[in-house]
Formats: sequence, structure tokens, C-alpha cells
Amino acid sequence: MKASKSNSGRYFEDFQAGTTIRHATPRTVNDGDRTLNNAVYPFRHALYSSDVFAGSCGLPCAPLEDFALFHFVFGKSVPDVSVNAVANLGYAEMRFNRFVCSGDTLSAKSVVIGTRETSNRDSGIVWMKTEGFNQNGESVVEFIRWVMVRKRHPGEGYFEPVVPSTNPAVLSSELPVPLGLDYSGYDFDASGESHRWSDYEVGETIDHRLGVTVEEAEHMMATRLWQNPARIHFDATLRGDGKRLIYGGHVISLARALSFYGLANAQPVVAVNGGRHVSPCHAGMTVFAWSQVIDKAASRVPGAGALRMRTVATSGHIAAFPEDTTSPPVLLDLDYWVLIPL
Amino acid sequence: MKASKSNSGRYFEDFQAGTTIRHATPRTVNDGDRTLNNAVYPFRHALYSSDVFAGSCGLPCAPLEDFALFHFVFGKSVPDVSVNAVANLGYAEMRFNRFVCSGDTLSAKSVVIGTRETSNRDSGIVWMKTEGFNQNGESVVEFIRWVMVRKRHPGEGYFEPVVPSTNPAVLSSELPVPLGLDYSGYDFDASGESHRWSDYEVGETIDHRLGVTVEEAEHMMATRLWQNPARIHFDATLRGDGKRLIYGGHVISLARALSFYGLANAQPVVAVNGGRHVSPCHAGMTVFAWSQVIDKAASRVPGAGALRMRTVATSGHIAAFPEDTTSPPVLLDLDYWVLIPL
Amino acid sequence: MKASKSNSGRYFEDFQAGTTIRHATPRTVNDGDRTLNNAVYPFRHALYSSDVFAGSCGLPCAPLEDFALFHFVFGKSVPDVSVNAVANLGYAEMRFNRFVCSGDTLSAKSVVIGTRETSNRDSGIVWMKTEGFNQNGESVVEFIRWVMVRKRHPGEGYFEPVVPSTNPAVLSSELPVPLGLDYSGYDFDASGESHRWSDYEVGETIDHRLGVTVEEAEHMMATRLWQNPARIHFDATLRGDGKRLIYGGHVISLARALSFYGLANAQPVVAVNGGRHVSPCHAGMTVFAWSQVIDKAASRVPGAGALRMRTVATSGHIAAFPEDTTSPPVLLDLDYWVLIPL
Repeated sequence: MKASKSNSGRYFEDFQAGTTIRHATPRTVNDGDRTLNNAVYPFRHALYSSDVFAGSCGLPCAPLEDFALFHFVFGKSVPDVSVNAVANLGYAEMRFNRFVCSGDTLSAKSVVIGTRETSNRDSGIVWMKTEGFNQNGESVVEFIRWVMVRKRHPGEGYFEPVVPSTNPAVLSSELPVPLGLDYSGYDFDASGESHRWSDYEVGETIDHRLGVTVEEAEHMMATRLWQNPARIHFDATLRGDGKRLIYGGHVISLARALSFYGLANAQPVVAVNGGRHVSPCHAGMTVFAWSQVIDKAASRVPGAGALRMRTVATSGHIAAFPEDTTSPPVLLDLDYWVLIPL
Repeated sequence: MKASKSNSGRYFEDFQAGTTIRHATPRTVNDGDRTLNNAVYPFRHALYSSDVFAGSCGLPCAPLEDFALFHFVFGKSVPDVSVNAVANLGYAEMRFNRFVCSGDTLSAKSVVIGTRETSNRDSGIVWMKTEGFNQNGESVVEFIRWVMVRKRHPGEGYFEPVVPSTNPAVLSSELPVPLGLDYSGYDFDASGESHRWSDYEVGETIDHRLGVTVEEAEHMMATRLWQNPARIHFDATLRGDGKRLIYGGHVISLARALSFYGLANAQPVVAVNGGRHVSPCHAGMTVFAWSQVIDKAASRVPGAGALRMRTVATSGHIAAFPEDTTSPPVLLDLDYWVLIPL
Repeated sequence: MKASKSNSGRYFEDFQAGTTIRHATPRTVNDGDRTLNNAVYPFRHALYSSDVFAGSCGLPCAPLEDFALFHFVFGKSVPDVSVNAVANLGYAEMRFNRFVCSGDTLSAKSVVIGTRETSNRDSGIVWMKTEGFNQNGESVVEFIRWVMVRKRHPGEGYFEPVVPSTNPAVLSSELPVPLGLDYSGYDFDASGESHRWSDYEVGETIDHRLGVTVEEAEHMMATRLWQNPARIHFDATLRGDGKRLIYGGHVISLARALSFYGLANAQPVVAVNGGRHVSPCHAGMTVFAWSQVIDKAASRVPGAGALRMRTVATSGHIAAFPEDTTSPPVLLDLDYWVLIPL
């Protein structure tokens, strides 16, 4: 009798800096994916909603929403990277390199760029650079993430640490310039708000006001859509409390969708500088968001500028942008660059 | 520090008869929207399900289901009209002017056609005529609705009442004639029932028999799909009882889908004469429906006649078409015109 | 006043061997259906996910997943066959004859091939051969199923038994050969596992490891998507315990999707030899699956062989492939043929 063929996933010992992993399950993106992304998260941004609006901004199609693209690529990496992960520690240098239209087929690969055993020697941190590609082999999104992964043999072996340097932010001069995008004739009536680049001040905070109470069926359907198989999101028997842990990216998309209110013209996201999943999200929580303008910069996209934003998601509404984003009720602290018409 | 940029919505004082409001977020309808409409509601009507069936009825595509079209256009009006609404009071003169195919892009505008302060002067009624358009600027659906809206400054100001007259019903001679529709070769095997126009008698009632127990994830996914952001549908912390109020249109679509059983050939809906949301719907309720034939009329569509129907949705099954439709368990009382083969 | 027009369904007396029933609601399959099938079930098989992968296997499109096709056709038969069914007793001789692409329109018909009254004479068993067709009239899937159906008049009448013979398995020499499929250049990196036909041994068992806790909203959305109107799946008031009975096909798709882990290359399913719904599935259960290799055979598909598999779904994880599959926690025992690269 052979050993069971179902893969138990990589352990810390299986990662070595320099290794490239090609991820499974290429996926043709279609209009149904866009529909479901709109049904699970309260997105109302015009750029992703309307072929006509997108066309008036120089694009051949209303593109796949940015974080949906991220989720698809992230999902592909999970079976190879984080099946045995203890925690998803952080993101850096995420760049949205190219829009994805319905009909495009996504694939992904990752390179191990660092490993370091933890001091108690039962697990280790693995740094990966993951990149998604379209059917022409063009990069559509890339990001670095680091996760804590269990060791197969706790306490055993010696592992030379390789710790990569990651940039605290993507430089504004190095932001992706989405092909074809032109905001010279941007339609502010169609987009829903009149606020433009010049209306935002560094330090300004925005209460996005709306809250969404999260249901189990929703986060599971979304996480399956991204073909992310991490069992902790689906199997209520894994934890003593009978709760499923909601995929962190679900909170990212919720926060991004809620940020429409006050940031309706802040589209697309072109880079993520960093992100922390501060506390776990479970069904029944009502997610709200605040944002703060961190920086402003020029963009090479005609008619557009860039805003560096921090969006903080919380469980329950809070009265002001939180000073402390290291503990509940904060769920997420996300630092990113968006374009916005001048 | 600037004021928060997220819009707090219009109050009664912000509406003036004659004003036109162009609504945000144009939306390209796609096949995924049709799928989700079919997954959330138990639709089985052949016209919307099959390109082949629709083609045999003279149409270039299986059109977007009628109330899905309504929901998309209604959803666009919510941020501009009913964010501060106390209640959705009624509909009138809804006409489905043109079919929508996948790939069409919907936009919407509304004209304020009346305003009247309530006697206690803390709110007022606003009448709006809302219209949806395709990417060619052709009207696809229009309707009048009236809502009670809070005043920003209760008790203050004087507001000259402007009360529009609305018709109690769309005249059968003025029903929309869907472009291309021809029921001369209607396939009664494919549609699921043999009943035709001549089989229905004025006064006849139909028990649609099937019931659907409603779940939170379903109504929220549908309501988000229509990009309707009214927070009462999503945020369980807004009411003392922890319940979300289900979007009234969700009950309309449930009732319409359930009415398939006994009205399988009653397609498409061409006009809605009026509708009342009699009592609120919450998750956990099991929705049933009865219908009654109110009137019959000729139609200019080849091979078709028109039926004026009343469909009443209830929470729990009731033994006969309800005499009293003004209180629970009645949820909805809808009066509309449908076409049906002769 | 006429009798209510909603159909109460066929009783045992209404079935006669030799009768052909054409089922209602032709359905154009679209990309949204594929999306939702992926969102409700944790499918990760490459063949259905990527047009590029499918193209490299000789196909013009990533086809509709096999059991989604089955569900669509099964759903059409429900209003005509099993509205008054007491139980779905079994399946046999299911053959997937042809792939379905987005844009294809499905229709279905059934032939009554047998009837036998039960000994207590209050119901009877009806055998049906059901077949699904595309818009060109080509068979896409066929299967035999037998159901126990209530009698309209228990105890009355005499019914000559007609008991068809069904084959215990589809012969490997008679397996469908999917048009165009060629596994000569199969991409094992993209598919997610390296296991090929020669790696599997008869008798080998596979623990698929992952579990999914089922939610009401999910199974209802899926079952509505297939336009299966059996009320027991939707109406929580029908049973004393307030539980909905989950459509048996939902468990089939869950089990098939979970079987990815260890059987990632076992695609497509070409035949089902038999299937038993051993015990009912309800929301809140966590579904797991084990599989066993029953047989191996050659295939006429270039580069492919066939595996005859048994996949058993259980509520809760069990330690080994179950000896006894006749009682809980077993939900499903499915016997089928899949292709797999050599």
C-alpha cells in the first residue's frame, strides 16, 4: 500500500532561498468572477463596473478589480507556501503591473527570497516573492510576503538565516503606470464623487461610515473563488471555538470597497507598501473602515496624481482614525498607493 | 483638517421639484449577473434562461430578467435619493422599455417631481421619476417612486408642497411593446406549462405553493450585486434587535420567481402599476406567494396577450389569496402587467 | 373559479414505461455558472479552470465541470420526476458524452424505463433514463436514476411491474472518449500534482484531508443555479426539525472537489457506475472525503488511462477508508471512471 497521495504541504525545511516554485491551477478570469467580487464586497468604483467608463479612461475593458487580481494570485501560492503556516506576517512591494480583462488566463510563480528559523526552533519565517502573469507571460501583479511556517522536525537541524531587505514603501517615482490609462476626460458624475487629487491633504482622515456584518457563506465563497484552499477558512471543526478564520484578504477587499465613500475616485490601486492583519476576523463581526492620506505624489498617468493612503479596518465603528493599530478592534492596517484624477 | 469626504446623503431640504440628478456607477451587465440572479432567486422562466428559446421568440439574446434590471437602476438611485429615507412608500408607472443583453452598460438619472413636508415637520415625502438607459442612451426602464426622507433641520423652514399625480395603473393600451418579441411560435414544452392567455380568468387565484427560507448571505449578495449601498441591509448593529432589514426588491424578485408555478408563461413583465412593502422581511422568514388575475388585455406583441396580475408575498404559507394585504404576514402586494402567449 | 394552475407534480400512477418526457427550461450555460460552481465547491482542477490548459489538452474551451453539467440536467428532470419523490434511490450508467462550453444551451428529456409498486402499495419505484443535449441536439450526458414516488391513491389499482436491468458498471471499453482530448502534452506543474496513471494501484486509498463546513446559503444558491426546485432543499418549515435537506448532488460536487488532493490529475469524469446517498446532509456538517482505486483500464484518449474510483464522503473526518458505507457518518458512496494522464 502506497502512502496517501494528498500533499501535506511544505514545511520550513522545504524552503531554500533561491528556489522558484511554479504554482498550480492556471485560471481564466471571466465576467462571473467580476460579478461575484461585486456581490461579496460592496464595490461601487466605476472603473471596474463599466466598460463604457473604462473606455473613456483609455482602457480596452473594465479591468478585474485590483485586489481580486491579488487574491487569485495569492490563492495559487497557498498550497505551495502556507498550508503549514502559523501566521501570515506581512506584505511588501506589491505592484499592480498590468490590467486583467475577462478572458485573460492567470498563472503564478514564487521565488523563496529568505528563510530564518525562529529562536525556539519549532518554526521559521519564509519570505517569498510571488508574481502573477497573464497568458502572454506579462507580469500582472507582484508582491513579497512573509509567513511563519512550521518545521517538520521541531528543534532539529541548522539553517543559515537569509534575511532579505524589503522596502518600507514603493517609491512614488517607481509606481506602475497602467497601460493606456488616461484621466484627462474623467467623468466625475459617473464616478459618484467630485473629490480630486487637489482636494486631499496629507494627514486628512476619512470615516467611510458604512459597515458590513460578515457571514460565513460569503467569505467562504470568495475564498474558494480565489482557489485558496487553506483549511482554516472552511473547516469549523479545526478550532476549539468552532469558528472559521476569515481569509485576511477578505478584510482587505471589504475595507477597499467600503473606502469608496470618500475615495470614490481613488482608482486603481497601483501599489501596496505594507499590510498587517492585526487581529482575526470572524463571521458576525461588522467591519468598518477609516482612511488617512499619508502622502501625495505626481503620476505619469495623464490627468492623474497619486495618493498614499492608510486604510484601517475595524470590527465595529470607531469614532476617529485609530492612533493605535496594533490590537483589536483593528483588523487590518493597509498602506497603499492609488491613482486619482487631478 | 477638512471635513470627512464621505457623503452623508441628501436630506428633504436638498430636493426641489424639477431637479435632475445623474446617478453614479454605470454598470456593464454580464452573464455573471444573470447567473447570480438565478442562484439567489428560484427563477425558471425560459425567456431569460436560454438564448435558443429567446431566439425562437425573436430576441437577439436571452435578456436580463426584468426585476434584475429594475434593481440595477434602483440601486444607482439609492445613494442620491434614499440614504436618509425613513421608508420607501410606493411605486407607480414602471415601464420596461427595452430588453438588456449581456454587454450593455446601464446608467440612470432621476428627476424630482414632487416634495411635501409631513405634518410633524421632521421629514417629508419626495417623489422621483427614475430612468435607466443603455449605452446608446435608450431608455430601458422607468418608474416613479416616493420615499419619506428625514429633514436636516426638523421643524425649520417652509416648503411649498408640489404633489404630482401618478396613475393608478399603466393603461393596457400604453404597455411597452418589447422590440422584436414574437410569440407566434412559442414552445410550451420548453417553458414548462401549457397555460396560455385564454386559460386565465379575471378573479382567478393561484397558489404558487413553493416556499423559500431566506438567508442573510443571499439577500446581502443580491443587494450588493445591484450596488445598492443602503446600510440597513448590511449592518446588523443598526437596529436594537440585531436584524438586518432585507431590501424590499429582494422580496419582489422572490415573489416573481415563485410565481413561475402557475404563471410559467407569464413573461416578460412589461409594467408595474404599483407596489407596497407591507411589512419588513428578515432572514429566517419563509416566503410564499399567491397571485390573482386582475385584468386581461390585448397586446401588440404578435401571438401574445397581457395579464394584469397581483402577486402577494407572505411570510409563511397561507390557505387562500389574502383579503387583507395591509398587515403581516403579508410582505408585499405587487400589481403588474405581464405578457403571455395567446 | 378554476383549480389552481400550479402543478402538483406526477404521482406513481402517472408514470408508464415507454413514455418520453421533455423537460422544461432550456438553459444557456455561461461563464458565471462556472464561476459560481467554483465559489460554492472548492474545485481546483486545471482542465475546467483555464482555457489555456484546456487548449493544451486539445479542447476549444475550458469545459463546464462534469457534475455541474449533471446538476443542470438533473435539475430539469426534477419538476417532472421527483416532486413527489420519497427518496432518490440510485444512479447507474451515467456517461459524460460531450463537453459543454459557455454559450451552449442545455435541454433534457427522460424516458420512463421501469415502474414497480412497493409491497405496502402506497408508493412505487420509477426508473428513468435522462439525457441532456446541447443546442445541436448532441447528447452531452445521460444517466439512469430510480426514485421512490408517492401514489396519488395509496392502496388502489394494480400495476404490472416493469423492472429494467441496469449494469453495475460502465465497461471500460465503452467509456466515452471526449472529443479532441489529448493528454500527450499534459502539464503536471499547472495541474498541481505529479501523480499519473501508473502511480495508482488498485486497492490504494487516499485521504483527501480537507473538510468544508456547509452553510445553508451555499447549498441553496447552488441548487437554485441548477434550477432544481425540490422544495425540501429550500423550505425550512417542511420538516419538524427546521432543517433543510441538502440536495444529494451538492455532496457529490463537494466530494469531487475535495478529491483534488491526491487526484488532481483525475479529470474529467467520463462515467458514473453508481452512487448512493447513504445519509442526509444538513448545514453545519463538515464534509470530508476518502477515495479508493477500484480498477484501472486503458483509454482511447491519447496519453490517458482510466481509473475506476470510489469516493466516499463523510460528515466529520474518519481515520481510514470506511469498511462500512451503509450508515452515518457516511453521506455518499460514489463509483465512477475518470481519465488521468499516463
